[in-house]
Amino acid sequence: MPNLNIPDTNLPRVVVIGGGFAGINLIKELKDSDHQVVLLDKHNYHTFQPLLYQVATAGLEPDSVAYPLRNIFKKHRNFYFRMAEVSRVNPARQEVYTNIGPLHYDHLVIATGSETNYFGIDGVARDGLPMKSVPEALNLRSVILQNFEAASLTTDLQERERLMNYVIVGAGPTGTELAGALAELKTHVLPHDYPDLDFRRMSIHLIEMADKVLPPMSEFSSRNALKYLQSMGVQVWLETAVKDYDGSMVHTNREKTLPASTLIWAAGVKGRVLEGLPEDSMEKGRYLVNETHQVKGLERIYALGDVAAMKSEAYPQGHPMLAQVAIQQGKNLANNLKRAAKSKGLRPFRYKDLGTMATVGRNRAVAELYNRFKVRGTLGWYMWMGVHLLGLVGFRNRLVTLFNWLINYFSYDRKIRLIIRPVNRLKSGEKKLGLAQQEETIQST
Amino acid sequence: MPNLNIPDTNLPRVVVIGGGFAGINLIKELKDSDHQVVLLDKHNYHTFQPLLYQVATAGLEPDSVAYPLRNIFKKHRNFYFRMAEVSRVNPARQEVYTNIGPLHYDHLVIATGSETNYFGIDGVARDGLPMKSVPEALNLRSVILQNFEAASLTTDLQERERLMNYVIVGAGPTGTELAGALAELKTHVLPHDYPDLDFRRMSIHLIEMADKVLPPMSEFSSRNALKYLQSMGVQVWLETAVKDYDGSMVHTNREKTLPASTLIWAAGVKGRVLEGLPEDSMEKGRYLVNETHQVKGLERIYALGDVAAMKSEAYPQGHPMLAQVAIQQGKNLANNLKRAAKSKGLRPFRYKDLGTMATVGRNRAVAELYNRFKVRGTLGWYMWMGVHLLGLVGFRNRLVTLFNWLINYFSYDRKIRLIIRPVNRLKSGEKKLGLAQQEETIQST
Repeated sequence: MPNLNIPDTNLPRVVVIGGGFAGINLIKELKDSDHQVVLLDKHNYHTFQPLLYQVATAGLEPDSVAYPLRNIFKKHRNFYFRMAEVSRVNPARQEVYTNIGPLHYDHLVIATGSETNYFGIDGVARDGLPMKSVPEALNLRSVILQNFEAASLTTDLQERERLMNYVIVGAGPTGTELAGALAELKTHVLPHDYPDLDFRRMSIHLIEMADKVLPPMSEFSSRNALKYLQSMGVQVWLETAVKDYDGSMVHTNREKTLPASTLIWAAGVKGRVLEGLPEDSMEKGRYLVNETHQVKGLERIYALGDVAAMKSEAYPQGHPMLAQVAIQQGKNLANNLKRAAKSKGLRPFRYKDLGTMATVGRNRAVAELYNRFKVRGTLGWYMWMGVHLLGLVGFRNRLVTLFNWLINYFSYDRKIRLIIRPVNRLKSGEKKLGLAQQEETIQST
Repeated sequence: MPNLNIPDTNLPRVVVIGGGFAGINLIKELKDSDHQVVLLDKHNYHTFQPLLYQVATAGLEPDSVAYPLRNIFKKHRNFYFRMAEVSRVNPARQEVYTNIGPLHYDHLVIATGSETNYFGIDGVARDGLPMKSVPEALNLRSVILQNFEAASLTTDLQERERLMNYVIVGAGPTGTELAGALAELKTHVLPHDYPDLDFRRMSIHLIEMADKVLPPMSEFSSRNALKYLQSMGVQVWLETAVKDYDGSMVHTNREKTLPASTLIWAAGVKGRVLEGLPEDSMEKGRYLVNETHQVKGLERIYALGDVAAMKSEAYPQGHPMLAQVAIQQGKNLANNLKRAAKSKGLRPFRYKDLGTMATVGRNRAVAELYNRFKVRGTLGWYMWMGVHLLGLVGFRNRLVTLFNWLINYFSYDRKIRLIIRPVNRLKSGEKKLGLAQQEETIQST
């Protein structure tokens, strides 16, 4: 049907691709402006990615970190949501093409975020597990629990060790937080569930190419995070890169090999770009944009957040791929669209760095505010929790998350150890399926 | 590996198939007795089935109605859990055969519960949706939301109506509660999400073969439940049976046809029986058991709950398939196993009917206590909530469920409207996939 059954009005139509941090903050700010806004997303919910690692480690339910997109904007007039996957853009015709039909736009905002980047390592792409979406986090939760069920069954000690070993690649916030959460599972939770397994044999390896964990943070924070990780039993391998993985053995650049049936890849992302835009509008998988978010050479097309590279003196490679950048860019573009409608001049984007933080475990976090104040330990942990609670969309999600955290804190437990949809993985030794194929063969009995 | 890697001891081994109400209450009661207990279940969690309808209608998250089985018994000595699907029993060799290997037993308890019974109606088995497990409830949640996304896209009014119509077959507690929950979604929630759809066109049909809703309850309760359903806009068709379904049109025995792309089947269950036991040990899909739960002709094999038919004067067809029966039978068998170990006489099972209840909507429930006290309305609703909260396993689940109910009550909302794993259904007119095939093709991007 024409234009996805969205009425044609005399308001200019802003089509936003992606309901992540950039997209939802843009649309919130456009409320009651003279635009028709259409949001396209392949999911019907917004994902709060910073807490996905807690879903994967049975600390939070998936429904706490996801929020229905239609509900966010239910008080907006002239707003339309369509669950659709965009395949291509035609800038000359001002149209996007989706799995449910074409759509004409007056302004197009590309806020598609990023996807996992395996840097061409085929073995990792095939047998490694990513953690960028709710289904991927749920798959990881299933795999972790299925590993221990399988370990209970085998009498082959080497096989059992492989099943109980975890290799996490990338010591950014995601990898660091996941390693800490796994270490807490190992110490406090899993030994009760599996009394016949010897948990001294469970190893958690964190591999990082740089010479410190949390590379973008200060020396102070990195040193403290490393100390926390080591005190919790995580084995950290700095200045180490993964070369290959065959589903049971991780090969690194240091002649070090690690036996592990689970490798979690948190070492890189790349912009999720669309087909149909000129090659010279992007660089290294991100759209080159000017200070008012316009994609190079394309007047009515904008890019925000992870998929945009706005180069400046302060950020010669573009801004870091962080939620804060996406949020601020979304708001700035919305204000510029409103200003343009009133024929006012556009405001260039200026990034206000509020700081970064990462939590390793209970009472163990590092935080840097405005890149000046450095906090660690219990205080950092409280700050981390406060910021993440406020970042969640919706009162219900915040409340349920807070209660889960309180219960987890006092019980030292993680109750959501459910294998709702087992992931099909063949026995080690046989050829394992990569996640793409695993997803096709998910059993849901 | 031999005996699923479970050590051989000189304690008698009790193998329990199924972690439902019967199985977990049996095992709880066997704590610290002189038995080795092995629980087999194809899931690693217990499912609180009475609240699955709230998962399907976005009121509760799946993780609140499921609880990890290992966690329930973590303080039991000589307890082993194995995630396994049992395919066959060999009573002569005292062995069960599973997808992960064989296991020898001294006592075998069959507590496999029930499965959906389509009574040979092929069209319903192919295109209808059941709701007996967490994945099935999640699939139903996805289908409901996907229907409205699809209805937003079509300009064909007949097609839109089919997508917005729901036919629920069976007005037992499950069907009645689901119909009420859908009516609340229609009234309070969905119109905000889909302002471009006309919700007067959404119909909820409840079809029942008997001449009243909630057939096992009293006239008083049935009449009140019917009144509640009708006041909420549910169209109830009594003395009506579904004859066939082709994925878009429901055919009944009354020359009445209803257009609907979604048919939810809550009209019948049958015992989930195993292969390998003699034919004359079962009748109508349930194992015939004596007053001490022993399956007819098989001394060391017991059956409990939905899969067992213990015929008596009061219950000539065996007990009703209710949680209460399963719980009480599990406890009685556990006590008998303990008595037998001390060479004491066995106690015959006596069912104590505590009553039945069903909720239709906010402040609208019916309850019968000890089959004497009849309650309805707000008081019945509070009682229903109290009983179901206490029935949930685990403090976290109870607390999170209570908070969700409070939030739902005050906000008139159901926030968990997430399509986490879309169910692949082809467009109406094309041949649709039955759930079995849908599950194989679930996309989880």
